[in-house]
Amino acid sequence: MTFPQAIMSYRESSVTKFTALQEEICDALEEIDGSQRFSSDHWQRPENSLLEGGGGGHTRVLRGGAVFESAGVNFSEVFGTLPLEMSKKLIGSESEQPFFATGVSLVLHPYSPMVPTVHANFRYLEVADKCWFGGGADLTPYYLFEEDAEHFHRTWLEACGEQRYRTFKEECDRYFYLPHREEARGIGGIFFDYLGRDEPEKVAEYAEMTYAVSRHFLPSYLPIVARRKSMSFTEAQKQFQLLRRGRYVEFNLVYDRGTQFGLRTKGRTESILMSLPPMVAWEYCFEPEPGSAEDALLEVLRRPKDWV
Amino acid sequence: MTFPQAIMSYRESSVTKFTALQEEICDALEEIDGSQRFSSDHWQRPENSLLEGGGGGHTRVLRGGAVFESAGVNFSEVFGTLPLEMSKKLIGSESEQPFFATGVSLVLHPYSPMVPTVHANFRYLEVADKCWFGGGADLTPYYLFEEDAEHFHRTWLEACGEQRYRTFKEECDRYFYLPHREEARGIGGIFFDYLGRDEPEKVAEYAEMTYAVSRHFLPSYLPIVARRKSMSFTEAQKQFQLLRRGRYVEFNLVYDRGTQFGLRTKGRTESILMSLPPMVAWEYCFEPEPGSAEDALLEVLRRPKDWV
Repeated sequence: MTFPQAIMSYRESSVTKFTALQEEICDALEEIDGSQRFSSDHWQRPENSLLEGGGGGHTRVLRGGAVFESAGVNFSEVFGTLPLEMSKKLIGSESEQPFFATGVSLVLHPYSPMVPTVHANFRYLEVADKCWFGGGADLTPYYLFEEDAEHFHRTWLEACGEQRYRTFKEECDRYFYLPHREEARGIGGIFFDYLGRDEPEKVAEYAEMTYAVSRHFLPSYLPIVARRKSMSFTEAQKQFQLLRRGRYVEFNLVYDRGTQFGLRTKGRTESILMSLPPMVAWEYCFEPEPGSAEDALLEVLRRPKDWV
Repeated sequence: MTFPQAIMSYRESSVTKFTALQEEICDALEEIDGSQRFSSDHWQRPENSLLEGGGGGHTRVLRGGAVFESAGVNFSEVFGTLPLEMSKKLIGSESEQPFFATGVSLVLHPYSPMVPTVHANFRYLEVADKCWFGGGADLTPYYLFEEDAEHFHRTWLEACGEQRYRTFKEECDRYFYLPHREEARGIGGIFFDYLGRDEPEKVAEYAEMTYAVSRHFLPSYLPIVARRKSMSFTEAQKQFQLLRRGRYVEFNLVYDRGTQFGLRTKGRTESILMSLPPMVAWEYCFEPEPGSAEDALLEVLRRPKDWV
């Protein structure tokens, strides 16, 4: 398959912005971790891929750091033919369509249960003659510090503006939800998708917005890490983190659209599942003590709050 | 919703056989574990279930045993209305249909990486005016002992007879497969489903077969536990087990039909996800040393073998 011609001018700008973002984020995370560096894997989609196509990516992973038990920051740029089911779902087409996708995606799993896990993703997609932007960032604390939640949400409010923030915040609460647990994955953030798909005249504006918003990831998260990374914690608190990480795995493997998209388009498994935590526990019918800090977290996960 | 009338006579016999099987299995597992007992949770489907219906079950769990880090043996008997998508898939119906399902399902996660994980499930289903039996058992070793694999498969061959065993063994290899890893979940066993759905005149025969086959679970597995439970192992071997358990989680959450059926019919989450291991690890791009015991296991998972 030949590389399909760009239908819009956002391929090059997206690749440039997202690769620069990846580098900036990895540099800052190495600095705050202070002990480990990111590895660097350049990869290409294998030629024997079930779906025609190609492309590749750059996966960067840091493991066993002073702050991060595991941190993955992935850039990819892939193209090919989308399965019928996904072509239908994404643009309502009755036949397989060519696609192009590029984005940066990260999940950081700190060792300390006092430092929240965070996920962010910014992406550009083309399917046939349509194109759009998507992205978001959401925080998953194990022990809830209200000032952290407020800081995270306030940063995104300032990044998006009040009106967009309200919309994206609601979408985030809707998206990162586990129906079988009747609880949210974390305390939310922002989530947006399909921006420009049905409004081609606005794609340029959404491109600028996505690039600008993506630069707020570091200021949304680093101050929280700085505040929490030296706090002490107990074995029992670490164990609670491992159990909560189980919910993270359940969400990613059962519901997450990015994971499904990746696995079904024969993406690079190791880069897709880099989002899974390094160590996880499950325990039958675990319930925190009523009135405990662990219980307080669950309360918030069951009823999303307005943080700003 | 009123309890729909039994269309066939297999409800009562199935409930009787499966509850007796659960008890027999739990007793034997307590005996070989020697340190912990099974807890016993009788539960009912909540009335605010999204889908009308009811029923309940009996979930038995043993944790922190000398042999079993976690062992779950579940019996359930549920009924209600099946979502359209599943009614269509199961019996080709264009409308939501009433269903009844009963079965016993178990997953045992031993602490020692020398003792294999095992799963078994035997079930009876009715959807509208059709009914059928399904079931199976499969073994997931971390360190491969050929005599164990042979014993497991030979027991099922003797239970099913040569011809059925061959069919069920192939179905098992097809079913317990992770496309995104290009490897099997374990070394297989038997798997069968929809027996009698399209051959109502043979349901009686399949009922007897399923009840009889289910009694071979203990002889298929206990001798393996007895042989391996006192073997010593290293930290590195335990870590390899935790990484392989990650694959178990990937299969169950991404592909397993029983898990999907349970989560979509608003089943009891804790009883469904009891199959997940108590402690699990993921590591980016982990590859065992070529020629090592870990590598030998992967070889077999990539190319299913004929064990008898």
